[in-house]
Amino acid sequence: MEKERIIDKFLQPKSVAIIGVSKDFSSISGKPLKNLIRHQYDGEIYLVNPKYDEIEGITCYPSILDVPGSVDVALIAVSQKRIMQVLDECKEKSIKHLILFGAGFAETGEEGKALQDKLLEEAKKADMHLLGPNCIGLLNVKKSIPLGFSTSFETDKGFIEGNVGFASQSGALGFSLFGIAQEEHIGFSYIFNTGNQIDLHTLDCMEYMLEDEDTKVICGYLESIPDGEMLIRLAERSKVLKKPLILLKAGRSELGKQAAISHTASLTGSEEAFQAIAKQYGIITANDIDDMIDAMKIFKRGKSANGNRVVTISNSGAAGIAFADYSEALGLNLVSLSTETEEKIKQVIPPYGSPKNPVDITAQALKEQHIFIETVKIVVNDPEIDAIIVQTTFGGELGKTICEKIAEIDRTTNKPIVVTVTGANEITGQGKEYLEKVGVPVYLTPYKTMVALKKLIDFSLFCEDSKRNEDSGYTSPSLEHIPTSGIWTEEKVKKILAKMNIRIPKGNVIENETHLKQIKDVIPYPVVSKVISDNILHKTDAGGVKVNIQNAEELQKSYTEIIESAKKYFPNAKITGVLAEEMINDEAVEMFIGIKDDLDFGTLIVTGLGGIFIEVLNDVAIRKAPISLVEARLMLKELKGYPLLEGVRGAAKRDIEALAEALVRISYFAKVHEGKIKEMDINPILVFEEGKGIAALDGIILWND
Amino acid sequence: MEKERIIDKFLQPKSVAIIGVSKDFSSISGKPLKNLIRHQYDGEIYLVNPKYDEIEGITCYPSILDVPGSVDVALIAVSQKRIMQVLDECKEKSIKHLILFGAGFAETGEEGKALQDKLLEEAKKADMHLLGPNCIGLLNVKKSIPLGFSTSFETDKGFIEGNVGFASQSGALGFSLFGIAQEEHIGFSYIFNTGNQIDLHTLDCMEYMLEDEDTKVICGYLESIPDGEMLIRLAERSKVLKKPLILLKAGRSELGKQAAISHTASLTGSEEAFQAIAKQYGIITANDIDDMIDAMKIFKRGKSANGNRVVTISNSGAAGIAFADYSEALGLNLVSLSTETEEKIKQVIPPYGSPKNPVDITAQALKEQHIFIETVKIVVNDPEIDAIIVQTTFGGELGKTICEKIAEIDRTTNKPIVVTVTGANEITGQGKEYLEKVGVPVYLTPYKTMVALKKLIDFSLFCEDSKRNEDSGYTSPSLEHIPTSGIWTEEKVKKILAKMNIRIPKGNVIENETHLKQIKDVIPYPVVSKVISDNILHKTDAGGVKVNIQNAEELQKSYTEIIESAKKYFPNAKITGVLAEEMINDEAVEMFIGIKDDLDFGTLIVTGLGGIFIEVLNDVAIRKAPISLVEARLMLKELKGYPLLEGVRGAAKRDIEALAEALVRISYFAKVHEGKIKEMDINPILVFEEGKGIAALDGIILWND
Repeated sequence: MEKERIIDKFLQPKSVAIIGVSKDFSSISGKPLKNLIRHQYDGEIYLVNPKYDEIEGITCYPSILDVPGSVDVALIAVSQKRIMQVLDECKEKSIKHLILFGAGFAETGEEGKALQDKLLEEAKKADMHLLGPNCIGLLNVKKSIPLGFSTSFETDKGFIEGNVGFASQSGALGFSLFGIAQEEHIGFSYIFNTGNQIDLHTLDCMEYMLEDEDTKVICGYLESIPDGEMLIRLAERSKVLKKPLILLKAGRSELGKQAAISHTASLTGSEEAFQAIAKQYGIITANDIDDMIDAMKIFKRGKSANGNRVVTISNSGAAGIAFADYSEALGLNLVSLSTETEEKIKQVIPPYGSPKNPVDITAQALKEQHIFIETVKIVVNDPEIDAIIVQTTFGGELGKTICEKIAEIDRTTNKPIVVTVTGANEITGQGKEYLEKVGVPVYLTPYKTMVALKKLIDFSLFCEDSKRNEDSGYTSPSLEHIPTSGIWTEEKVKKILAKMNIRIPKGNVIENETHLKQIKDVIPYPVVSKVISDNILHKTDAGGVKVNIQNAEELQKSYTEIIESAKKYFPNAKITGVLAEEMINDEAVEMFIGIKDDLDFGTLIVTGLGGIFIEVLNDVAIRKAPISLVEARLMLKELKGYPLLEGVRGAAKRDIEALAEALVRISYFAKVHEGKIKEMDINPILVFEEGKGIAALDGIILWND
Repeated sequence: MEKERIIDKFLQPKSVAIIGVSKDFSSISGKPLKNLIRHQYDGEIYLVNPKYDEIEGITCYPSILDVPGSVDVALIAVSQKRIMQVLDECKEKSIKHLILFGAGFAETGEEGKALQDKLLEEAKKADMHLLGPNCIGLLNVKKSIPLGFSTSFETDKGFIEGNVGFASQSGALGFSLFGIAQEEHIGFSYIFNTGNQIDLHTLDCMEYMLEDEDTKVICGYLESIPDGEMLIRLAERSKVLKKPLILLKAGRSELGKQAAISHTASLTGSEEAFQAIAKQYGIITANDIDDMIDAMKIFKRGKSANGNRVVTISNSGAAGIAFADYSEALGLNLVSLSTETEEKIKQVIPPYGSPKNPVDITAQALKEQHIFIETVKIVVNDPEIDAIIVQTTFGGELGKTICEKIAEIDRTTNKPIVVTVTGANEITGQGKEYLEKVGVPVYLTPYKTMVALKKLIDFSLFCEDSKRNEDSGYTSPSLEHIPTSGIWTEEKVKKILAKMNIRIPKGNVIENETHLKQIKDVIPYPVVSKVISDNILHKTDAGGVKVNIQNAEELQKSYTEIIESAKKYFPNAKITGVLAEEMINDEAVEMFIGIKDDLDFGTLIVTGLGGIFIEVLNDVAIRKAPISLVEARLMLKELKGYPLLEGVRGAAKRDIEALAEALVRISYFAKVHEGKIKEMDINPILVFEEGKGIAALDGIILWND
């Protein structure tokens, strides 16, 4: 892979030039040098600035062209006014890897955007690779190579190496997060800040880390999705490798999107689409910096859960109640313990404790620490438990000893053990820090603990769920020889649906009066009559629909009225005819299925209930097409109106399976014609009683011309 | 107030006895003495334990009766087996204030409950006051008097005094929270742990602190509501005094409630009712420990906001996007700045920054810190801004200087200024700690900052909103001389509704065949006929409803059929007659209004839309009765189905005012008959087009017998 070699070079340069270096180590152009010195970079450092002869004993050259040796990576700290000249010089010097710190590009408006485009064009011509502009740089934590001006580089303690990799579009956020995480003993492999990311972007860096053997947890802060298809590819690969992708996606609100545009000049995609993709492909999402750090902590331990059966053990009843409260809200399953396990716990804890889940071992463990340890061992050995939360408020030596013993047990089992240590640092800090150092996930509060564990369990189960993204192997009706442009209305859409084996009402298109006379006595009444015209999208508005037609006479009347109304409504409409269609009166729930061509992610399939669910509650489920039957069922289940399909208050259960099957078929149709279909809307779809199937009553397709 | 004097004595004893004291300072019975010595308690300490002669040079007596002086507060560290004997001795010694540490009471089952009841009974007889049992004790932070065995007392740094008071049902949670908060420089006045709270409970302690002049922020951790009416009274008082009540209420889930019962033997009330009361009376709720600490931090500063117009200023574009994202989710109003203010900011910040809200001053402030300070000053002086969030990622000396200047500005303005300092402690810790010490609220992440600010703004606006809880002055129909027992069905309920000026359909109860003949020709058709019987609650099931009756003949027929069906359905039913009632066919939204007698809070009023909104979505609004018109409107607005009242997709707006008015009237009816009404359900209520009012079509009342 070519990108891999490029990023390798950025991360491990044998020589670095700083162009526009400053003697003022508190400035953006001075800090990169200071950081290289501080972290004892052992490659060549070349400085370029006509103002100085040397800085800290290192020769300073007037121009990059004066530098004697070859340069792997150039750090560019000049203003945007001088950027093109510097680029030219780097080109002449055959430097292929540039990190551009300066701001003043697309984020400032049209002029900056033009400059940025030119920069990229010239760089590409010369086969140069760029990180930035408007970025803080990167950090190879494994080799302790900082290339940039982040405040987080200014530590004298050295960096903690580990298996977490992070690509951040924002430098301030990315490196602040890194600094905070390091203080919680989270070790990293690499951190990238991509800024305006005109060349290398966040997903490039994430892909590199996904394939890197030392990186096991791949994190990203994204203000825009550089490449939706690539994100999906990475997510699929993440499932294969069992390395989670954790994303903090900004620009969720309308206002946030505006701020994102003025920040790094990026169009933020639709939040709903992103959330759907995350759900479908097992991407873990974080709400804020601390939420992401909490997720890093549990994933870097490298364990996975076999299921969602969680037990909590605490020395405080209040913690138990809290765990119970949050488990319900978060969807963690605090299972009932087996009688056997409860009995075993009872033998260990005081009589006023609770052997039921949430287990309360009481403050007695203050005196007899074995209570804690033995209870944890009992649940570790219970095959009906998948994950364990241990909460303690004990401090000092005792607290530390308990944490040490928990860590000891953690090493002996594949089950995730997560710890809540609630208390002031002065008191419980030792135990907490011990767990952090040995890598057992530990959190200050019950809520944070459970949020993190939920993410781990979700990802574990997602990786094991081979059916979810399985290929249904459907083939979709061919549209060869059929012109796909403009708008298709009811008749054409229904023909396609019929080819997909989706039931449509039986009917005939009456083409003219003669045709009407031929068939009016053989039609099975009652029927509905509807005008068929490519020009009329809103048939009811055009007076083009008549229902409950009982006989030939009424059909004749409705035919005449429909044609008249339609012509009045749209004088130039090309009218194909009038559809006389069987009238379905069976009890049914009304749904819709739609297809949408998304800017970021391509063809999406959307479904929901009709009426107030869509109009008032905006209750829809979205996925990337195609989907499996399992995924289709999950889509339906996530609808707020799902109970209506299951049957509420004595109503019959609806044919959910038939509906799910139709979703799958339409999703394959969407996929096959991806790029061609702009929008499709099948509405309404009637869902009958279980076993009685569905029927699509109307539909429209807008083609991309 | 008597309770005030009692709690005063608990907090400031001149002499303390420890009964069952231990020499082992790591044990529960040893720690209280160690803590008194450590914090240099200057009153008398009397020790009681027949095993010792002295501990740390303090005489140890065999029995409390041997103690020479009088004892203000006794700390009881004996097991539950000896508790009654110790109580007797304390009684003989005339000790009036006891703190009971031991567990083994109601939380363990029936036997413990009986012991606890007996304990309380004996104590009350002797006019003794109890804290606990099953509690850790209390801490008078102002005077540095610890009475208990919390690990948080084992600090050598001394306690930070301040204006936050905290009453916690759980000791482990309460004192852990306290310890964490102290490390963030949050000062306290008092902390109480009430445990099984058989005598003094959390609300008693909160009331004391509410009236205490040094306490400005009143916090509580509650697993149960000891007294719902009292909580409401405290909340009302909190509004008058402008001191917030902040509650962390546990036992929210069904599982949590079970855990709560086994923990401190308390029945947890309905979460929905509690949330409604919190909303209605301006109680601030917290989700977890850190959320409560975040709230303490902003309220202890003592500022309030005049409105919800918020501006954010940051040196990182990512933070600006985050603020925009969260503001939308949380309901904070990131206002557009005036052209004037934007212009002023533009003069200060670099051209690639953003003078629009969220304001991005860029990393340039790293070089020129005046950019930060001047921008903050500009918005402080803008009368169209109510609150300011400042975010910085700067570290070291510069970061600290910026924080110092922000604190300086904070002192000059009444507007809340809240700061986000994102970064590792090593880097940004100095600035953050400075702000904490001088009391400017500061948070690690944008999300936490905004959550806290939202709470402050909500409470500020609530205190200023005098109309919300105003008395409508309605009088309710008298029920004198009417027996209120059993069940009232449609006819009786409608009579009461009519007296409340709530429209009911015009109608007549046909008492018998003779009566039918008299009136059948004068009735204005069409009508609906319904059986009237106290025994028949489900009229439709009994075949007791016929609609669309057009004339006298149809009425006769329906009458006969209804009487026959009803008798068949319920042979012994006492049938009052058949109601022939005008049939209303006007377009309407169907709602219901209910009354419920709540265990914790007394009479609640409930409303919602009918159909799927209640059956599928559980979409209801709840309040304590009575309510003002303002509150009634807020109730309706919080419904997910509210857009249907406003009119969706071209439908007419409904008569929301008439509906709100009916809510108020029914709420006054509920209040007047509080304790008598067990349940009431008016369903359906039709809400017609704006200006056309409402009509109640059916109703039922269940009386408390």
